[in-house]
Amino acid sequence: MTSVDPDAGLLAPGRAGSPAESATSDTAFLQALLDAESALTRAQAATGLAPAAAADAVTAAADAARFDARDIALRARGGGNPVIPLVGDLTAAVPAEYAPYVHRGATSQDIMDTAMMLVASRTLYLVLADLARTEEALARLAAAHRDTVMPGRTLTQHAVPTTFGLKAAGWRSLVLDARDRVRAVRDALPAQLGGAAGTLGAFSAFGADLPAVEALVTTYARELGLAEPGLPWHTLRTPVADLASALAFTVSALGKPAADVLTLSRTEIGELSEGTGGGSSAMPHKANPVRATLIAAAARRAPHLAATLYGSLAAEDERPPGAWHAEWEPLRDLLRLAGGAASDAAELAAGLQVHPDAMRAHLDLTHGLIVSERLAAELTPHLGRARAKALLTDAAKRTRTERRALSDILAETPDLVGLDLAELTDPTHYTGSAGALTDRALKRR
Amino acid sequence: MTSVDPDAGLLAPGRAGSPAESATSDTAFLQALLDAESALTRAQAATGLAPAAAADAVTAAADAARFDARDIALRARGGGNPVIPLVGDLTAAVPAEYAPYVHRGATSQDIMDTAMMLVASRTLYLVLADLARTEEALARLAAAHRDTVMPGRTLTQHAVPTTFGLKAAGWRSLVLDARDRVRAVRDALPAQLGGAAGTLGAFSAFGADLPAVEALVTTYARELGLAEPGLPWHTLRTPVADLASALAFTVSALGKPAADVLTLSRTEIGELSEGTGGGSSAMPHKANPVRATLIAAAARRAPHLAATLYGSLAAEDERPPGAWHAEWEPLRDLLRLAGGAASDAAELAAGLQVHPDAMRAHLDLTHGLIVSERLAAELTPHLGRARAKALLTDAAKRTRTERRALSDILAETPDLVGLDLAELTDPTHYTGSAGALTDRALKRR
Amino acid sequence: MTSVDPDAGLLAPGRAGSPAESATSDTAFLQALLDAESALTRAQAATGLAPAAAADAVTAAADAARFDARDIALRARGGGNPVIPLVGDLTAAVPAEYAPYVHRGATSQDIMDTAMMLVASRTLYLVLADLARTEEALARLAAAHRDTVMPGRTLTQHAVPTTFGLKAAGWRSLVLDARDRVRAVRDALPAQLGGAAGTLGAFSAFGADLPAVEALVTTYARELGLAEPGLPWHTLRTPVADLASALAFTVSALGKPAADVLTLSRTEIGELSEGTGGGSSAMPHKANPVRATLIAAAARRAPHLAATLYGSLAAEDERPPGAWHAEWEPLRDLLRLAGGAASDAAELAAGLQVHPDAMRAHLDLTHGLIVSERLAAELTPHLGRARAKALLTDAAKRTRTERRALSDILAETPDLVGLDLAELTDPTHYTGSAGALTDRALKRR
Amino acid sequence: MTSVDPDAGLLAPGRAGSPAESATSDTAFLQALLDAESALTRAQAATGLAPAAAADAVTAAADAARFDARDIALRARGGGNPVIPLVGDLTAAVPAEYAPYVHRGATSQDIMDTAMMLVASRTLYLVLADLARTEEALARLAAAHRDTVMPGRTLTQHAVPTTFGLKAAGWRSLVLDARDRVRAVRDALPAQLGGAAGTLGAFSAFGADLPAVEALVTTYARELGLAEPGLPWHTLRTPVADLASALAFTVSALGKPAADVLTLSRTEIGELSEGTGGGSSAMPHKANPVRATLIAAAARRAPHLAATLYGSLAAEDERPPGAWHAEWEPLRDLLRLAGGAASDAAELAAGLQVHPDAMRAHLDLTHGLIVSERLAAELTPHLGRARAKALLTDAAKRTRTERRALSDILAETPDLVGLDLAELTDPTHYTGSAGALTDRALKRR
Repeated sequence: MTSVDPDAGLLAPGRAGSPAESATSDTAFLQALLDAESALTRAQAATGLAPAAAADAVTAAADAARFDARDIALRARGGGNPVIPLVGDLTAAVPAEYAPYVHRGATSQDIMDTAMMLVASRTLYLVLADLARTEEALARLAAAHRDTVMPGRTLTQHAVPTTFGLKAAGWRSLVLDARDRVRAVRDALPAQLGGAAGTLGAFSAFGADLPAVEALVTTYARELGLAEPGLPWHTLRTPVADLASALAFTVSALGKPAADVLTLSRTEIGELSEGTGGGSSAMPHKANPVRATLIAAAARRAPHLAATLYGSLAAEDERPPGAWHAEWEPLRDLLRLAGGAASDAAELAAGLQVHPDAMRAHLDLTHGLIVSERLAAELTPHLGRARAKALLTDAAKRTRTERRALSDILAETPDLVGLDLAELTDPTHYTGSAGALTDRALKRR
Repeated sequence: MTSVDPDAGLLAPGRAGSPAESATSDTAFLQALLDAESALTRAQAATGLAPAAAADAVTAAADAARFDARDIALRARGGGNPVIPLVGDLTAAVPAEYAPYVHRGATSQDIMDTAMMLVASRTLYLVLADLARTEEALARLAAAHRDTVMPGRTLTQHAVPTTFGLKAAGWRSLVLDARDRVRAVRDALPAQLGGAAGTLGAFSAFGADLPAVEALVTTYARELGLAEPGLPWHTLRTPVADLASALAFTVSALGKPAADVLTLSRTEIGELSEGTGGGSSAMPHKANPVRATLIAAAARRAPHLAATLYGSLAAEDERPPGAWHAEWEPLRDLLRLAGGAASDAAELAAGLQVHPDAMRAHLDLTHGLIVSERLAAELTPHLGRARAKALLTDAAKRTRTERRALSDILAETPDLVGLDLAELTDPTHYTGSAGALTDRALKRR
Repeated sequence: MTSVDPDAGLLAPGRAGSPAESATSDTAFLQALLDAESALTRAQAATGLAPAAAADAVTAAADAARFDARDIALRARGGGNPVIPLVGDLTAAVPAEYAPYVHRGATSQDIMDTAMMLVASRTLYLVLADLARTEEALARLAAAHRDTVMPGRTLTQHAVPTTFGLKAAGWRSLVLDARDRVRAVRDALPAQLGGAAGTLGAFSAFGADLPAVEALVTTYARELGLAEPGLPWHTLRTPVADLASALAFTVSALGKPAADVLTLSRTEIGELSEGTGGGSSAMPHKANPVRATLIAAAARRAPHLAATLYGSLAAEDERPPGAWHAEWEPLRDLLRLAGGAASDAAELAAGLQVHPDAMRAHLDLTHGLIVSERLAAELTPHLGRARAKALLTDAAKRTRTERRALSDILAETPDLVGLDLAELTDPTHYTGSAGALTDRALKRR
Repeated sequence: MTSVDPDAGLLAPGRAGSPAESATSDTAFLQALLDAESALTRAQAATGLAPAAAADAVTAAADAARFDARDIALRARGGGNPVIPLVGDLTAAVPAEYAPYVHRGATSQDIMDTAMMLVASRTLYLVLADLARTEEALARLAAAHRDTVMPGRTLTQHAVPTTFGLKAAGWRSLVLDARDRVRAVRDALPAQLGGAAGTLGAFSAFGADLPAVEALVTTYARELGLAEPGLPWHTLRTPVADLASALAFTVSALGKPAADVLTLSRTEIGELSEGTGGGSSAMPHKANPVRATLIAAAARRAPHLAATLYGSLAAEDERPPGAWHAEWEPLRDLLRLAGGAASDAAELAAGLQVHPDAMRAHLDLTHGLIVSERLAAELTPHLGRARAKALLTDAAKRTRTERRALSDILAETPDLVGLDLAELTDPTHYTGSAGALTDRALKRR
């Protein structure tokens, strides 16, 4: 290969070494471009537009290892895409008699879009595998901690108790939402074949009648394992928007457990910790939540990349000058972020350490105020609403200033004699439907 | 109402006066908040947690006209959301004996999220109606112009001929894609009910057992005409992301016909014109493509708003400090952009004027080179590939420099005697599968 | 005014009631449009292109209270901008003999862009005032807490000690950076005057020679208190991009103290609290960091709005169909977010409560490991690098497992006898240059 | 190097082979990281914190060719950044006695941020060189075509005449705006040095007093050719935001000439063409505006990348878990987009072909209506305003329907006998201040 600087992933610890990284490399794209070309020739052979031997020859030649990606990239500057020089090289790589059957009837965008869908399809399988690993680990966590009580927090403050089981079940439901969206998109990824301006005109010129052209498109898609397109979609970019949406959803949704892990593993909180915390170049004692950090970083980037791709829907003409070209790198970046984040999430979920003691201890940080909502509800029938509220407001104030337990303060109230205040103020007894919701959520497959 | 400056829509001609504008106004939100509150009380009455009279009282009081939106907005600064002051006002508006049943067991976000879904639901019906009008007009255009030949353009240059029918059918397929995505999202918009931290804890404290709580959620959603949530989704924001995706898709996809209309109605091109062009403050002769302009403007904004909403998926805790609050205005903006763009698209499609003569005339601008692809295909069997290519390259060069018709230049080539060059170079005879693709696309309902 | 729904700010607690809100209202824009029109006529009078009485008449008529913003907004749909109907109404509002001097020689965009700059200018003054209040309060906090030691945190974990003074000084430096950028932009906001296509052609047709046209532009800008433009900038959108940049910077930079306050006021941390925490609709005990929450919400939105505006730089022709129209609402939103965030930041800074005891207590959470970096440095001369590292690694492990103070464990090491371990492990003695950096930062004005 | 797939630039024709590409490669980053490390040791030697021989040893070892970027990238996953493994490798690469002086007192972020600024600085020099080439070519075009009249276009329609000189001068003014912004940012790019949490604490532990620490920072920055930071800016990200702003401005601003070239080189317009148009894989006759296309693609992406970077301003603590990590790839992407776009712009400007004949011919497309604004101005003194307007409205209608010249139709009006209608309707005589504005704009250096 022409000398070229490798992308070692130095700036991308979130994806370095991940399966999605190699599935989306320039070599992988080059192979996908060649796969699209050879499928096209095979489809033409199958529909009588080319000799079978041409299909064999192109298929044999279509091996990325035989082409120089860097040289193609440099020559791509001339026409603005790599297919133009690649077609030249591929044509030169087959016996002269089969040269006319290379790229026959197609336009650059047919091959480029198809290759993008192939790469996406291959990467989504990897993403789905890591989402499945993540989901399974979270299901185990949710079941194991169905009744592990912890503070529910809103706007950074303790609100009422919840359970870690419900939290993990919620994370899992997001992972399943991502899985469902990724699967649906993957199953619908279409091949692209429209010819110079989306009319499939050249195939008629080569002698195919309309049913033959239709059969050609069908065969081409089947050869590639992609869906058959309803119309050529050179400027009808629904497939790209759908990919963008599913990928950005996946990365952003994984950002939720990451955000929670980052919060709950703070030095002061310590309710969770990553199995294998990352070190520091300066401080020997640190164990950083690195997996969560890298997922959080990906979640900050993905929405912007998806927005870039949505921006390309408004594309003029039969092929736009710029909107299409702007898709390539952001779409790959999204695939890599999703692949990296799913892989990190699987590691994170598998290794996550839960510290129920810390959770339990924190339930007492507000000296019982974390169940003030319950008390308001329970005392009203006894005292009337106004009296209950006044009493609780006063008790809450004393709890904060005196730093004594709310139950002790309430016990000094004569009206409440006879109530089981220990029970009523026990935060572990105020988890509402958390258990039932967790059970229900875990039934989803 | 407390004195407040109206949003007259002065900066928003794309939505001023549209149905979506009033469906998303502050008054509409206020009513939706009240609808959520009254549905909650009715659901509690239905499940035995509140007297029927309380439900009647809250329902009667829940009329936006009785509340001061501005005053609520100003008081919302205290706690960061408008539900807190609204609950105070609503409580004051019902007979004292029913006051305890106002907002009982809910948290602000339950009401706010539910209201957002209600407003979205109501607006999506309007969007769908305008998408339907758009789709019908485009179907008529595509059918009427199935065989209207025009230049296909790629990277701004004439490529090969296509038809306006295929172009309009492509636009319509995008509108149908938008419709399908909007419908799916609308049907899944969930009510929100989780209580202070998503455990539905208060309802247990009020005495409901778990099945009663479940029935309460079911009834609440049914009262509102919204879907029942799988889990409380205070920080599981799939519904918001799905809305963002469908809305951004809709606006961006409508940007495609808008981009084409803008291009094709240029003074030099004039193949299309808006039915009623907009005037100018300075130039009496101008007829601007204003509907397309406003849709194009919306399409530039929508992806960024959707990205903002995707960014809120990564939300910490049981309610996040900021990620949730950042959703409200962007989501409304997206609803308004979608409503305005769909309304503009319906007008645009209904009034669009097609100028087949201009299309036909432009097919000759390249003096026949627009069918060079066809000639390369057709001449190869006669001349061999190398000879055909050399001959065409030379003829193309002469066509450009001599500004003569390609067919005339080719007619001077002895080898081609006997070929029907007039037929082979007739751009209207080189539309490939355009007609068949149009027919197929129009079968989609 | 035609009946219209007010924008009560129900979805915008971050700006409801703020000075920037009314400075950017539709009424304020209407007035700015009228100010631009009257300045134009006055400038023409000053340069001999119009009678002085016409200038007086237009200036007298140019009062927003006399116009119906909603009606103008609805009629704006025809031509795509509100200036067209406004010019009609303004013309009707002056005596017939002066009607020809209304909007004479201008195009809609001249007035619209100028009004946008006027509104921006007026709002930036308000933003700067609130940034000044914020900066002063932060300077006081930084000076008061120059030596208040607290844990420095990286990747959520305690790293080494720092001071709250340095943190507050850092926040202030961001506020000063914002101030500098806002000021520079404000001073350069240009008036717009180019005529129909940026050539100022109509003024020649009205009889002005080139120096007169130049004088007209100068006078027009001076009348408005705006900078004189180098060229008409209808499609040279540097002023809009610069505004976007300064505003997004301001909001995003304020997001830094907000993020810190949110973290440090968590229930478990409690090192900071907002002066007047926000309440909750369900939980009487809560005191939420609402100001920080609303700033954080604004910081999530601003970058996307700025990106929308940057996207409009790539605008075709002498006025683009969409790129310009897409600027209006996002630019106003950015002004409002900046105004609201600056106002909230000023309140936050003025009321912020610092809890040095909590900070001090947390320094011991790692049992001394927070100074492990120092120990590695200090012990190396005594023990050699390898021995020091091995000893510290072992001691750190024991500190974590035995939950004893690092100094106690080290004291058991014979090699370290004679070292002042209490001093070496005192976190309050390891703040490096924090004090000096704070002093230096506070010298910046 | 560990086997790794090269980034051949297959998806990035806009930057493949550009100087900015190699200046931002992983190898370039690796070298910049090493440059930062060696500067740090040299600065310590200069301030007495390390022996001179250590500085020599580290400097000698700090050669990217001696390190394995891929291996470092893979190990970077552990701690989340490449500096941690790099420090290990660098330490191993120096004689054991100097090992303690490697990375001494620094934190990973000190090195990473400094390297980012170094890479930015080196790339901005390349960007500025290409902006200078672009500006010079545009100045030549503007001067040469000062009086080349062409249609001014607004909302896609002919408005009034303008000149290509003014258009090119406007493009140039944007390039100069970009240059000014890039220069200002480049000159302010700061080194980073703060130690573990921004207090420079370790240096005190190594025995440096406060003035020595200050001198160390000064020397470090000077060694690197970067500005001295006011405060450590680990979470005060003004430098990154300023870079984002200048780079996004540059790319977006170059999108303006690109958008114009794309429009004006359309087959139907042909007023401009790129010097060397790009070919097509399917159509031998095509000459695509490829440079403009690639710039347009970059302009669609840059604002989103800048928004990602602005989003990282709101970073909690002394180093944030995610906000920082999210900067690395987007910042590099922005540098590459700016480098590629500036290089493409320089080529585009140098080779641009202007076709004054086509411009002149198009001035007649509206049969004279392009000067209707002028006529309205000129006829009013003769006919009165109302009569002039009525007459022009009628004449405009007849011009459109009869497709005759406006001057011929007006000549049939008895009132206008004696006026030089040929002169008044000559579009080349209605360019207003275009020439003077061009002259003024070209005076800017």
